[in-house]
Amino acid sequence: MYQHRIRRPSLMNAVMSADQAARLVTDGMTVGMSGFTRAGEAKAVPLAMAERAQSHPFGITLMTGASLGNDIDKLLTEAKVIKRRLPFQVDPVLRAAINRGEISFIDQHLSETVEMLRSRQMGPIDVAIVEATAILEDGSIVPTTSVGNSATFAILAEKVIVEINLNQPLELEGLHDIYIPSRRPHREPIGVMKCDDRIGLKSIPIEPSRIAAIVITGQTDSPSSNEPGDHATKAIATHLIKFFEAEVEAGRLGRSLAPLQAGIGSIANSVLQGMIDSPFHGLTMYSEVLQDSTIELIDAGKMTFASASSITLSAPFAERFRERLSEYKDKIVLRPQEISNHPEVIRRLGIIGINTALECDIYGNINSTHVSGTHMMNGLGGSGDFARNAYMSVFVARSTAKDGAISTVVPMVSHVDHTEHDVDVIVTEHGLADLRGLTPRERAPLMIANCMDPAFREEAMDYFERACKQAGGQTPHLLAEAFAWHVRRAETGTMRRK
Amino acid sequence: MYQHRIRRPSLMNAVMSADQAARLVTDGMTVGMSGFTRAGEAKAVPLAMAERAQSHPFGITLMTGASLGNDIDKLLTEAKVIKRRLPFQVDPVLRAAINRGEISFIDQHLSETVEMLRSRQMGPIDVAIVEATAILEDGSIVPTTSVGNSATFAILAEKVIVEINLNQPLELEGLHDIYIPSRRPHREPIGVMKCDDRIGLKSIPIEPSRIAAIVITGQTDSPSSNEPGDHATKAIATHLIKFFEAEVEAGRLGRSLAPLQAGIGSIANSVLQGMIDSPFHGLTMYSEVLQDSTIELIDAGKMTFASASSITLSAPFAERFRERLSEYKDKIVLRPQEISNHPEVIRRLGIIGINTALECDIYGNINSTHVSGTHMMNGLGGSGDFARNAYMSVFVARSTAKDGAISTVVPMVSHVDHTEHDVDVIVTEHGLADLRGLTPRERAPLMIANCMDPAFREEAMDYFERACKQAGGQTPHLLAEAFAWHVRRAETGTMRRK
Repeated sequence: MYQHRIRRPSLMNAVMSADQAARLVTDGMTVGMSGFTRAGEAKAVPLAMAERAQSHPFGITLMTGASLGNDIDKLLTEAKVIKRRLPFQVDPVLRAAINRGEISFIDQHLSETVEMLRSRQMGPIDVAIVEATAILEDGSIVPTTSVGNSATFAILAEKVIVEINLNQPLELEGLHDIYIPSRRPHREPIGVMKCDDRIGLKSIPIEPSRIAAIVITGQTDSPSSNEPGDHATKAIATHLIKFFEAEVEAGRLGRSLAPLQAGIGSIANSVLQGMIDSPFHGLTMYSEVLQDSTIELIDAGKMTFASASSITLSAPFAERFRERLSEYKDKIVLRPQEISNHPEVIRRLGIIGINTALECDIYGNINSTHVSGTHMMNGLGGSGDFARNAYMSVFVARSTAKDGAISTVVPMVSHVDHTEHDVDVIVTEHGLADLRGLTPRERAPLMIANCMDPAFREEAMDYFERACKQAGGQTPHLLAEAFAWHVRRAETGTMRRK
Repeated sequence: MYQHRIRRPSLMNAVMSADQAARLVTDGMTVGMSGFTRAGEAKAVPLAMAERAQSHPFGITLMTGASLGNDIDKLLTEAKVIKRRLPFQVDPVLRAAINRGEISFIDQHLSETVEMLRSRQMGPIDVAIVEATAILEDGSIVPTTSVGNSATFAILAEKVIVEINLNQPLELEGLHDIYIPSRRPHREPIGVMKCDDRIGLKSIPIEPSRIAAIVITGQTDSPSSNEPGDHATKAIATHLIKFFEAEVEAGRLGRSLAPLQAGIGSIANSVLQGMIDSPFHGLTMYSEVLQDSTIELIDAGKMTFASASSITLSAPFAERFRERLSEYKDKIVLRPQEISNHPEVIRRLGIIGINTALECDIYGNINSTHVSGTHMMNGLGGSGDFARNAYMSVFVARSTAKDGAISTVVPMVSHVDHTEHDVDVIVTEHGLADLRGLTPRERAPLMIANCMDPAFREEAMDYFERACKQAGGQTPHLLAEAFAWHVRRAETGTMRRK
């Protein structure tokens, strides 16, 4: 059944049950697990760890690529196994524990975790748990639907547990490009010059003797929810595509635009879907995650190549991807997240980055993470890696939340993840603000008029005008009332004035 | 007198007075001028422009490398010539006009200005005015004590005015390494693998026919003020050097540490001076500006090589540098600021970045620019280029300002330039907080205990504890009073409670 997936005969002895493998993880350890945007996470061993903790309580530091599927973060949280967690998560139960201060969450740029491990500023990794399609003759590991931080985790860990997932198609072999930057101070340039450049290996090279356990599994990735676009997401897509058309018209972009990066979620998905009927062609992606829209663009003949660290699809698209994997395989590559998100490559390729804002302010600062300035939503993810180094950094958001009670555009963001220096364009369903080359004072009226919900515009303009008059400065603010909208919301449930 | 500095005979005809050259700049133009940290700025033509504006008013967008010396920003501001200014400045008169909203100031990462010009997201440049040591046979331009953005300004401008400064030693020829990245999407890696790698030309290559004027000048660069270190700056240096020693002890750094970057100013200068008597050796710099301390470290045999975009010295060190230029020339290189500050190179080399904070908060966010959250001081400069991509990002600050009335460490910074994700270590005269791998909740007690002035600690701890209890979350804050210290200061002149 699985012999052809473990091609190094000596490793056959390492096959064991998930329960047995889970015993390799003990209290106080640091564990690095595969998984990025709920794709390709280790599935059986973490569940066995959660199970085992019922009778033998233990706690670990859990590092991953990004978010996990199959409720693994939830179950490990409920079992009180996770003490520290990084660099990203999306699980409601884990999130609540983080925000209660019960679990320590280190929110990091996704390109940075392995740099800190490699330079021993974090770590060491005791055990790596990596989902694999197969183990090759030389003991190297073929990942599945994500690469994330798996390669560096496996290379640095004292022991490696491999989950061979029989339900992941064997044809995934060859989809990955595993490149690990050499150690500083002798680092060479990262050789990616175009989205489709392959610069590494097809599997993760490790010393086979460090493979301490192999577990055979069969659970699929959790399908993405794939919420359909609505009026707002379609309006955002329309504004942005019109803007790109104007950039082409002005000669600043060609018909194939520039390599696209799009954050996860329904707005970014809508924007990419909107490109199916656009005049653009020969599109490429250099992103961290590929969603349904990537497959649609490739199928429509609009996109020639897509590079990322994971592929996260809804059930019907996952089905399509499996059936036609051989066709997609020369149009897609999956890389370590350090490479998909590397500042060097992003700057060199000249990417258009499209990321979602939780909140933005009239001066163009962005909050990607903290609800009400205090409570973690998911994490920074790769937004900083892309926004800082992009040719053009776009943030998209609905103008309001909670049925219009909350304005996404506020006088001052309650938490800053991206400063105005890293934000070129902001789009809501009401319109687009092109902030390039503008001062904060020039940005504010544009943000209010183009992006803010009309219900909040008058109060915002009044704030801005009074701030200019009473405080002045480069970025006029009235510090005593900069968060008045947030405070009102906390007190009355809405940012709207009665 | 100057014939040997204009080695292309046909260009002799372009020599004219500063007044004549200044007439090439007319109302509404965008002008790119040399100058970085008050070194190597164009001197005679901008003064002639200010003079001319008295009788013939006109306004321009002025771009430079960074700050200018010889009161040029002041005089151009007073003459109402500057309408828009980017990407950095330090002049009190210009600063006041910016903060009154009379001059539009676009505060940018120093590595980004030329990217935006090259991709035509800003610009075009009508006239470039560049100080030069000489013009070579092929018409190419040898810069003086800074490179800044001069190369790209000259390459992109419709017309170029060259100021040949007879007071800049001819031996500067050969000090520069002019490399301009190729245009995206066909950009090659930036070939700097070590601080001392030379990858470009010794002069700025331009089509000689675009040199519209050559002006002969002789004014020196403004000397840096070189404020001597005091108890606080020396304490900061001591804390940081002790920390580096512990990193060496732990095996994370070698005795030559990593290439150093240090922001301009007395604290960073003190830290570098402190290394003269340290156990480190074979030090290198990959920075944006070299100050007196670099010369001292080279003279002491502690530093083997220093790369930057400018060299800004006090009068005695400028004298020493001139006299022994031939000795320093193989130990120093000046590059375009796009290269000295390039994310690709900074990440590859694994730099230790040391920058000055205006204000920091208990969670490790940094304000580098905005006094009281509203008023521009100088600008972001290269701090973002370095902090984001450094191997280790250090921020230094005195714990108080205005004779102890203002705490530099506050509950929430009134403006964010660098988020906690980009800040590894913070040092004040009271101590050092190693924030690596810590959550915001773990950072706060450390910042309060180690870095904050004792007079403010109790109130800060009370804020933090109440925020944890009443608000909770990943980054506990009480938004209604997050800026209470700033508001108190505005009302009473001090952040101290009565």
